[in-house]
Amino acid sequence: MTFKSKHIRLFSPATVANVSCGFDVLGFCLDSVGDEMLVKTSSEKGIRITKIEGFDLPYETERNVAGVAALALYEDAKPEIGFEIEIYKHIKPGSGIGSSAASAAGSVFALNQLLGNPYNLTELTAFAMKGEAIASQCEHADNIAPALFGGFTLVKSIAPLKVLELPTPNALYAVVLHPQIEIKTSESRAILPKTVALNHAITQWSNVGSLVHALHTNDYDLLSSSLNDVIVEPYRSKLIPHFDAVKLAAIEAGALGCGISGSGPSIFSLCKGEASANQVKEQIQNKYASTGIEFELHLSKINAEGVKIIDN
Amino acid sequence: MTFKSKHIRLFSPATVANVSCGFDVLGFCLDSVGDEMLVKTSSEKGIRITKIEGFDLPYETERNVAGVAALALYEDAKPEIGFEIEIYKHIKPGSGIGSSAASAAGSVFALNQLLGNPYNLTELTAFAMKGEAIASQCEHADNIAPALFGGFTLVKSIAPLKVLELPTPNALYAVVLHPQIEIKTSESRAILPKTVALNHAITQWSNVGSLVHALHTNDYDLLSSSLNDVIVEPYRSKLIPHFDAVKLAAIEAGALGCGISGSGPSIFSLCKGEASANQVKEQIQNKYASTGIEFELHLSKINAEGVKIIDN
Repeated sequence: MTFKSKHIRLFSPATVANVSCGFDVLGFCLDSVGDEMLVKTSSEKGIRITKIEGFDLPYETERNVAGVAALALYEDAKPEIGFEIEIYKHIKPGSGIGSSAASAAGSVFALNQLLGNPYNLTELTAFAMKGEAIASQCEHADNIAPALFGGFTLVKSIAPLKVLELPTPNALYAVVLHPQIEIKTSESRAILPKTVALNHAITQWSNVGSLVHALHTNDYDLLSSSLNDVIVEPYRSKLIPHFDAVKLAAIEAGALGCGISGSGPSIFSLCKGEASANQVKEQIQNKYASTGIEFELHLSKINAEGVKIIDN
Repeated sequence: MTFKSKHIRLFSPATVANVSCGFDVLGFCLDSVGDEMLVKTSSEKGIRITKIEGFDLPYETERNVAGVAALALYEDAKPEIGFEIEIYKHIKPGSGIGSSAASAAGSVFALNQLLGNPYNLTELTAFAMKGEAIASQCEHADNIAPALFGGFTLVKSIAPLKVLELPTPNALYAVVLHPQIEIKTSESRAILPKTVALNHAITQWSNVGSLVHALHTNDYDLLSSSLNDVIVEPYRSKLIPHFDAVKLAAIEAGALGCGISGSGPSIFSLCKGEASANQVKEQIQNKYASTGIEFELHLSKINAEGVKIIDN
């Protein structure tokens, strides 16, 4: 019997975690920003990373985020075959838009497809979290969940893992500024206080509840007024050069809200409609061009689908 | 010209604030528990409390919650007539199920009706808060909002005042235990910490977001798992005799969740269906009967309407 290799090529999206008010629980998925991955079945058992383009990342399966995530699924499924993974990385590691989550989500999604979809999206999220853990030293799902489920997600709990798929208003666009500076995840974690004022916490959970209601009711004004972060942004924004100026420019240009994407340094804005998003993008472009800091600027519809198959 | 008096008789409902995870922002409205009020127009200007039955409360308008709330509306509307208010109080003050909110909500609702409805429910909430403030020393809306809007409400913010009307799943029933003990509001406020652990706050806003999503999607399992309070209940439950035993009995009898109503001492349970609510009520009855503490026990559908006109 000769082995007939199958393959899948997919787009694994960048994601925005926290979404201002929802630190550690909310996230949404981008559409035009992400990695490509090509995964092939092999008659030789095991998981091998056979190509990495774009950024310098480890080839050893156990040290690579996509590799570790794939291994978690592989060791559970115990298939008679192996897999070879090629990663075409477009999302810079450390950008704050879910670079490692894209790698982890993409590899488990691909393996699941090639094995005939034995796992549901929550199970895939759990496997992908094992990969994410080697990048962030702890298991998170706030980027992986939107990458796999698409749209807006709320990670209700990690143990047991429970992901809620929130509705995604159709006219919602994101603008993401990525200043080309590095903030260590350890630093952006260390800067956070261990305790918060009760009245600030109340404001935050009022905003989380309001944001979920706004998504269900297509209420863009309510969404806008819910996109506030009185807990994390006051600390982390200090690590991002010109954060306040960018936020002001975005809001003045008509953004519904603007905040730190994940642990930064990327800054996201949410906008109603593509025209508004273009205006916001232009104003941020003008503002950041004068800082002397290199940057990338993305405009993207919210991706309601998550990881997408390009061909198989 | 002879003055022709009009009147309105209404039911002003009891309410449950906080709803476990949503301290200071969430609330829901009860159906079979509440006060009655009769309000008449008068040719003599001003607001007069002419009758109070049930509990011993002040007749002076400026010292009575219903009076102060009515005055706030009256001074804004500046009508050429006056009002006489009769209060048939069934909700014991200090019960934790919105006794003062029922008085305040009822009086402003009645005046608004008799004046031809010049104000919307948010404006009425703002007037009623003035009355509530004399009972609690600060302006709150987490009982007034559900009393006026009905169903589940989320008070997004006080300034500006923004109340969200959340969907109310049809099969939802509440059981409310009211131990006949007094907890001073000042004591139940003082026992709360000024700061909370960030990880507890995250759990809480995850639950608030999940609860809002559960109400929108009729997901009773999710609702159940969202009805948790890691912030306030650990402190305030100590003030309520046998709280843990009641909660255990309610959950074992099938309640979706059980927690402190407002600042206590009342304890609410939410149940799916009337049969389940009856079972929960019975188990709580058995449990509390053995404590030697006097108590009342109510079973109520969620009141989606709020204040109800009995006749006018």
